[in-house]
Amino acid sequence: MEYRIALLPGDGIGPEIVANSKKILSKLVENYALNLQITEVEAGDSALAKYGDPLPKQTLDIINKSHIILKGPVGESAMDVVVKLRQMYDMYANIRPAKSLPNVPNKYGNVDILIVRENTEDLYKGFEFMLSDDTSIGIKVITKKASERIVKVALKYALERNKKITCVHKANVMRITDGLFSRVCKEILKGSEVKFEEMYVDAAAANLVRDPSRFDVIVTTNVYGDILSDEAAQIAGSLGLAPSANIGDSKALFEPVHGAAFDIAGKNIANPTAFLLSVSMMLDYIYSLSKEIKYKNASNALQNAIYEVYKEGKTLTPDIGGSAKLTDFIDAIYSKIA
Amino acid sequence: MEYRIALLPGDGIGPEIVANSKKILSKLVENYALNLQITEVEAGDSALAKYGDPLPKQTLDIINKSHIILKGPVGESAMDVVVKLRQMYDMYANIRPAKSLPNVPNKYGNVDILIVRENTEDLYKGFEFMLSDDTSIGIKVITKKASERIVKVALKYALERNKKITCVHKANVMRITDGLFSRVCKEILKGSEVKFEEMYVDAAAANLVRDPSRFDVIVTTNVYGDILSDEAAQIAGSLGLAPSANIGDSKALFEPVHGAAFDIAGKNIANPTAFLLSVSMMLDYIYSLSKEIKYKNASNALQNAIYEVYKEGKTLTPDIGGSAKLTDFIDAIYSKIA
Ligand SMILES: CC(C)[C@H](C(=O)O)[C@@H](O)C(=O)O
Ligand SMILES: CC(C)[C@H](C(=O)O)[C@@H](O)C(=O)O
Repeated sequence: MEYRIALLPGDGIGPEIVANSKKILSKLVENYALNLQITEVEAGDSALAKYGDPLPKQTLDIINKSHIILKGPVGESAMDVVVKLRQMYDMYANIRPAKSLPNVPNKYGNVDILIVRENTEDLYKGFEFMLSDDTSIGIKVITKKASERIVKVALKYALERNKKITCVHKANVMRITDGLFSRVCKEILKGSEVKFEEMYVDAAAANLVRDPSRFDVIVTTNVYGDILSDEAAQIAGSLGLAPSANIGDSKALFEPVHGAAFDIAGKNIANPTAFLLSVSMMLDYIYSLSKEIKYKNASNALQNAIYEVYKEGKTLTPDIGGSAKLTDFIDAIYSKIA
Repeated sequence: MEYRIALLPGDGIGPEIVANSKKILSKLVENYALNLQITEVEAGDSALAKYGDPLPKQTLDIINKSHIILKGPVGESAMDVVVKLRQMYDMYANIRPAKSLPNVPNKYGNVDILIVRENTEDLYKGFEFMLSDDTSIGIKVITKKASERIVKVALKYALERNKKITCVHKANVMRITDGLFSRVCKEILKGSEVKFEEMYVDAAAANLVRDPSRFDVIVTTNVYGDILSDEAAQIAGSLGLAPSANIGDSKALFEPVHGAAFDIAGKNIANPTAFLLSVSMMLDYIYSLSKEIKYKNASNALQNAIYEVYKEGKTLTPDIGGSAKLTDFIDAIYSKIA
């Protein structure tokens, strides 16, 4: 079967990262006979400037017909692109690995945490209004259904990892909303095969700094997940290296966690690692759909090539202390793809 | 003038920390002729068990007549004690220093950040309900008035420090609520004497890990402030050492940020540093009210004694790698108070 991918280069460093990464994607397609049909579409600040809409109709038409969205970083219109897409296609599970890479300095040694962030509700619903000139209101929504399905996703990942889940909330203050989330965690995880603990979000933010090795899988609601996943990625080495998957029952979106970094755009020094690791997550996802082992093999080949280039440490980009260009880094990975 | 203080020992390690710290407070009162009238009252889990109310009427009667509340950590009823008191007396500014101490291991060198957390609104209003069996709703409230006064507090502190303020929010997603907060920050801080930047809360959580030295004063709303202040305290060395002040126009509350630590209660090994630093913040506050320099001198004497004991490093408690008892640590500080 052919997998249709809508490719959104995005803004800032997005286009150069995506343009250069295509070379690697082509090699994977060729070496592993992957059946991908990739269509490039416009979205983000540049689309907004050009069409008056950061997600123009022609882009949505392509996305509608695609199985997968692969996107680069988007600028100030990110909310109207990514948060909108997450909700529009109910891509409810935001999967965010925080994993160290060799030769990326960090203060914590080898970090390997998976954050499973609920991706459709909480204050991200966008239900907000002014009650008066002075007073604004935002609505936090937490449902049983969304909590259940995200906790089940966390359970699935934890069973493939170290079988430990930390359920993060603030049910001592938000007794009803976070209380519901906490109750669902307990209902689903008690008696399961994983070790399960609850932790208040403030304590979790401190414990990530104190001892990240105590965490395996963290499951949490949307806002806390946004904050903790950036913190955890930095603890693992650099926010700039963190990939992510947004997975729903009928569509999935893969994207780097970092932003458009306009200040270094066009200089051929951006680091495409987070995008490439997102490509690897995409290939894993296609494997989980298709059960065709070639996708898993291609994902592993890409991951291994990335790890080897980091391990050699000769061709790293300036953000992590190297002096390689984006194109040098891409060539190094290209040459290592088995 | 006499300053009336309601003293709440709290739960877990609270009573032993407070009981032992009294010795130090008495020496300060004597050496500096402080005019304090301290009344001990019950609150927290133990009060709930005894009177069916974590904040019993007799406690509130004393608090009503006091200028200041000095409290130890409270257990699971913390929300009903501290969040209730913050709102009841409109103690709108939660001042949270994250400052390193000598001989407390941390990975970041000397950290000195002040977090100014709005303390009365956001999701902490407690406006929550079930819409249906499946769906819960929480109301986030951000007002212009509360945002203005907290930003003004941050400005006051920044002018006494390194004159830099980072205003933290997530106005790219919460455009109306956090948008209001962001607008107020700009209105008040642009053209002021401080350097001012805005930062999304997820980026702030990562930047605290990446380079805490870039921050001087952080001002933010209630939920983000809760999370970032625990993270920052841990980055400075230990959450267990962080004091805090909750300041309103007519009452103020001083408390350690840490919890009741039931697991080590009654063992004479709890660390009273956060409580003692909160006492120092209280004396500073009385100085700001009274302009009587003796309160400032007493605060400095207490702070210096704490710093010296840490600098010597001989009498530290187990939480930071020492083997001293709570009582040994108290004695060491006592003997150093000038
Ligand atoms: C850009 C922004 C809307 C987005 C979010 O808050 O979800 C980003 O921070 C992320 O984490 O993917
Ligand atoms: C105990 C809890 C209600 C409280 C809060 O969330 O404000 C605490 O975490 C704090 O930061 O003082």
